[in-house]
Amino acid sequence: MSLKLRPECIGCLLTVRLNEIARSSKSEDEALRKGLAFVERAVRLMKESIELTRLATKLYRCAIELCPEIVDYYRELKRSSVKEALSRLEGYKSRMKGLEGYERFELAVKIAIAGNMLDSGVAGHEPRWLDPADVARTGLVMDSSKELYELVCRGGRRILYLLDNAGEAVLDYVLAEELERLGNAVVVAVKSEPGFQNDITMDDVVTSGLLELFERSGIKVVETGTSASSIHLDEVSCDFKRELGEADLVIAKGMAHYEYIADEKLSKPVFFLLTPKCEVVSNAIGAPRGSFVVTKKDQKRQLEPPQ
Amino acid sequence: MSLKLRPECIGCLLTVRLNEIARSSKSEDEALRKGLAFVERAVRLMKESIELTRLATKLYRCAIELCPEIVDYYRELKRSSVKEALSRLEGYKSRMKGLEGYERFELAVKIAIAGNMLDSGVAGHEPRWLDPADVARTGLVMDSSKELYELVCRGGRRILYLLDNAGEAVLDYVLAEELERLGNAVVVAVKSEPGFQNDITMDDVVTSGLLELFERSGIKVVETGTSASSIHLDEVSCDFKRELGEADLVIAKGMAHYEYIADEKLSKPVFFLLTPKCEVVSNAIGAPRGSFVVTKKDQKRQLEPPQ
Repeated sequence: MSLKLRPECIGCLLTVRLNEIARSSKSEDEALRKGLAFVERAVRLMKESIELTRLATKLYRCAIELCPEIVDYYRELKRSSVKEALSRLEGYKSRMKGLEGYERFELAVKIAIAGNMLDSGVAGHEPRWLDPADVARTGLVMDSSKELYELVCRGGRRILYLLDNAGEAVLDYVLAEELERLGNAVVVAVKSEPGFQNDITMDDVVTSGLLELFERSGIKVVETGTSASSIHLDEVSCDFKRELGEADLVIAKGMAHYEYIADEKLSKPVFFLLTPKCEVVSNAIGAPRGSFVVTKKDQKRQLEPPQ
Repeated sequence: MSLKLRPECIGCLLTVRLNEIARSSKSEDEALRKGLAFVERAVRLMKESIELTRLATKLYRCAIELCPEIVDYYRELKRSSVKEALSRLEGYKSRMKGLEGYERFELAVKIAIAGNMLDSGVAGHEPRWLDPADVARTGLVMDSSKELYELVCRGGRRILYLLDNAGEAVLDYVLAEELERLGNAVVVAVKSEPGFQNDITMDDVVTSGLLELFERSGIKVVETGTSASSIHLDEVSCDFKRELGEADLVIAKGMAHYEYIADEKLSKPVFFLLTPKCEVVSNAIGAPRGSFVVTKKDQKRQLEPPQ
């Protein structure tokens, strides 16, 4: 089940990093020199045949070591993405007016998944905004949303919500607020600095005003303690591990969390919300690229009824 | 002026070859192993900072050395492309009915350039057929076609016509036949085995029946004597050099011929017919991607009037 390096991944992983290096270098000569140095190191890392999200993390760290300006490039990109998301927030929320129960919850889930299209880390995928009306019309594929709803609709759960890309987090706020409204305690987790490509970090939520927005709704924001592409358990902080331990269930956004967590034992229910954006993940999940997926991680321990 | 490796080229050159390796390998493990071996060798070749068409040639040769099945993959692709082109040939030719003089010649030029969209060697460019009506409507950019017409319209010239991709050659036949009809002697040149990606070879023209088609119209077909991506003068055969020496003018199709010949001294007029398919060539020429370009190579010696 674990996603390992496929032949198609080689070109994708290289292309995304090479584009960042080209965009962030001061001259063509610098971009060429750093690009070639990156590819050389990347091949060595790829030969180690490690799990994909760890490889992607190593490759990103290698790229920003060669070209630290990539972090600034993403900081700007993330700022404008969050800003645009905030300007669109009311458009999405207004679609929820008048809805109740599962119908309302399902729309919040779909709005959060729509945000997963805002991914800069997949070659051949252009980050894009989906119109609120289109989001409402889109059906869920591999739909575990009813099972998730049953678990949260009576409140009393502690939910750890793993955020992904920057603009996307604003649409995650819609679902997180809904989970709070249903009487659950929600903790959202962001990556630590220097971050991973366009994934949201604590610096991003603070400077964009998102922290205030989350906290006003009673939602706690925590850091994973690492800049890794997912919550690699040997890299996250003790504080984050405690959050993970205390959570009744986990909602994990995006491909990298799916890829990594699918094979880890977390001893609690995990729901993956994402849209596959490449053939490799699409095949692994069994859902087409661009489709809206809510899928539950296989787990042995059943969640106790809320007290 | 000479096109050298740009940062954007690294990902493109790697991706095209990696895709071929993935498609032509018998298993995922084989594709992964060969793909990584290819990238490792490719970085070393790229560091030599040689002219782009020579680098592309070396990279293709490196890929087929690792994975000889790529040649078979292209043989099939070329066969079906020529077959489809032949089935479309009458559609293109029928648009020329009733046209005379420059107007007729210009359409033949545009049909030949439309064929240049059938290129499998550019990442992000999907080979595609243009509808004959769309071809007729498309204007020429950087239009040296009138100057070319003046040189050939009274006949008596010996024209060396450098072919490019396989299906494209069928549309080049339309222009080559027109040049013959105007009283010129036309020699078309194909790549030698094992060929260069989907560029047409002698084996392709023989097995597809194209050789017969050309010869029936009095058009001679010759090989360059090399599988290089262009007519690298240190690689072509003596026979081909003689053809080049005897020609009054050269018509060169496609990006690779443009990239290489633009810097070589051929001591005779050269007209480039192509559509740019990547930013690097588009910027070098100064014409947008997908536009129809007829441009004349700067040359000192003026062509003598025909005898």
